[in-house]
Amino acid sequence: MSDYRVTILGSGSALSNIQTFHSAQMLKMNSKYFLIDAGEGVQIRMRQHHQKMLSINHIFISHLHGDHCLGLPGLLSSLGLMGRTAPLFIHAHADLEKVMGDMIRYFCADTPYEINFVPYDPYHYEEIFSDRTISVTTIPLKHRVPTCGFVFREKNKERHINKQMADAFEVPLAFYQNLKAGEDFITADGKVVENERLTTPPSHSHSYAYISDTAYLEKIVPLIEGVDCLYHEATFLSSDKDRIRKTLHSSAAQAATIAKMANVGKLLIGHHSSRYDSYGAFLEEARTIFPETYSAVDGARFDL
Amino acid sequence: MSDYRVTILGSGSALSNIQTFHSAQMLKMNSKYFLIDAGEGVQIRMRQHHQKMLSINHIFISHLHGDHCLGLPGLLSSLGLMGRTAPLFIHAHADLEKVMGDMIRYFCADTPYEINFVPYDPYHYEEIFSDRTISVTTIPLKHRVPTCGFVFREKNKERHINKQMADAFEVPLAFYQNLKAGEDFITADGKVVENERLTTPPSHSHSYAYISDTAYLEKIVPLIEGVDCLYHEATFLSSDKDRIRKTLHSSAAQAATIAKMANVGKLLIGHHSSRYDSYGAFLEEARTIFPETYSAVDGARFDL
Repeated sequence: MSDYRVTILGSGSALSNIQTFHSAQMLKMNSKYFLIDAGEGVQIRMRQHHQKMLSINHIFISHLHGDHCLGLPGLLSSLGLMGRTAPLFIHAHADLEKVMGDMIRYFCADTPYEINFVPYDPYHYEEIFSDRTISVTTIPLKHRVPTCGFVFREKNKERHINKQMADAFEVPLAFYQNLKAGEDFITADGKVVENERLTTPPSHSHSYAYISDTAYLEKIVPLIEGVDCLYHEATFLSSDKDRIRKTLHSSAAQAATIAKMANVGKLLIGHHSSRYDSYGAFLEEARTIFPETYSAVDGARFDL
Repeated sequence: MSDYRVTILGSGSALSNIQTFHSAQMLKMNSKYFLIDAGEGVQIRMRQHHQKMLSINHIFISHLHGDHCLGLPGLLSSLGLMGRTAPLFIHAHADLEKVMGDMIRYFCADTPYEINFVPYDPYHYEEIFSDRTISVTTIPLKHRVPTCGFVFREKNKERHINKQMADAFEVPLAFYQNLKAGEDFITADGKVVENERLTTPPSHSHSYAYISDTAYLEKIVPLIEGVDCLYHEATFLSSDKDRIRKTLHSSAAQAATIAKMANVGKLLIGHHSSRYDSYGAFLEEARTIFPETYSAVDGARFDL
């Protein structure tokens, strides 16, 4: 199983049922786990799909519609029962704490860990998380309430040292970190050895973009350019013009158009309206524009 | 299908999973539907088991532990999406509105129906609902937070008129209601005709008792005496003495003892701790004391 993958915990919109829970995804980037949105029942789906619940340290909530965050209180309370002690960070619109903070504190009164609400500004593209290897930035979207998508990017990795060549030029161990960072090496007699002769390119830096509820929005394209995998909501089919306009959601064709323009590796579509009996038509519509499209159904797992 | 039945929507305790959602039951009494407790995902289970979500007018919440009420916001929000207009009444400890009221109003801001919180006093046995045919009373329990069970009883029904006999004694139609209520009839010449000669006994008045989280509590016995069907929590097996004492929950044997003392028709047990792999031992323990015991597993349906 890949170390870089996303598991769809819930893919439904509006009215959930046993096949399609509300929005939630678990992203694994190497050894790190991120929960993106937390619809009702997310804790149930996590257990069902054997997700490492206690390994999540950061939760990202795209917007404050119930189908994207009502699973939080139950999840947080269960993490307490499971004995979590590490602090947890919830990145969301500032209203989340105002609206759910008291309730969460009431139902999690005995939990042995700290819950931190970290508000982000939903109107500006900004980095809201960064550690040694991963960076997460917001992507302001266009919906009926302030909404953000998120891009998860591995930071540029180090170049790999070509040990044989490094030995040949007598590069001291102390300089290895500089080599990995891309520096050229200067020998004792002042000769410049280009970095490319001493190293091979770094491994691929993985990336994932999550575009939650939004109207068609071309200005996000440069922000998600070239990601390995893009999730983009596709609530309606193109024919449902009135609803697309009124609800500020996207069609499958619009999701595919964004994917194509951004030149992403593959596209996942979900959040289909429960008005449609089958999801085949969504895939069909999207694939005419962007063939590498897949259905983000509950329980599906995609390598980045 | 019986007009008097309870459907188990969730039967789990503490950590829910796809087999056992958190506590919730749907009670049908003739043409009326009552929701008892509302654990996370209750709206999902209702759709799964084809329950008439829009027919519920009254919800009864036994206590404010998350596993008994965190499904409320999602359910209430979905009822709005489904176009509910009839007012809804939520009977619960007064803290429910304090803790979840703002959040529910936030996520249900556009709902086209009225949500009424009706607080009850969790320390006194009292009638909290009554209409022409049904009465609901609280049963104060003993748990770590204020908790109540509920008894649902059909009111005494009318006697059935024996038309042939009523005609023979020339009972006027205007007196039929008095006959149904049990009055004797006095003929024109002053002769008393006993009611029993003119009527047959009323149909059975159905009853259901829901005993939520509680330590063993004998004083509830007279309050649930003779109900058709009793649900009583059974979180542990008798051998788990320490946990029973510390958590203020009951064992399967204790639930069965209460059922036997109250001389109920049948006993349903649930809320089993997730520490146990299988639930067979619970049934076994209870049936040695009260043979008519059944497992209230998710999706099970019992006629009263």
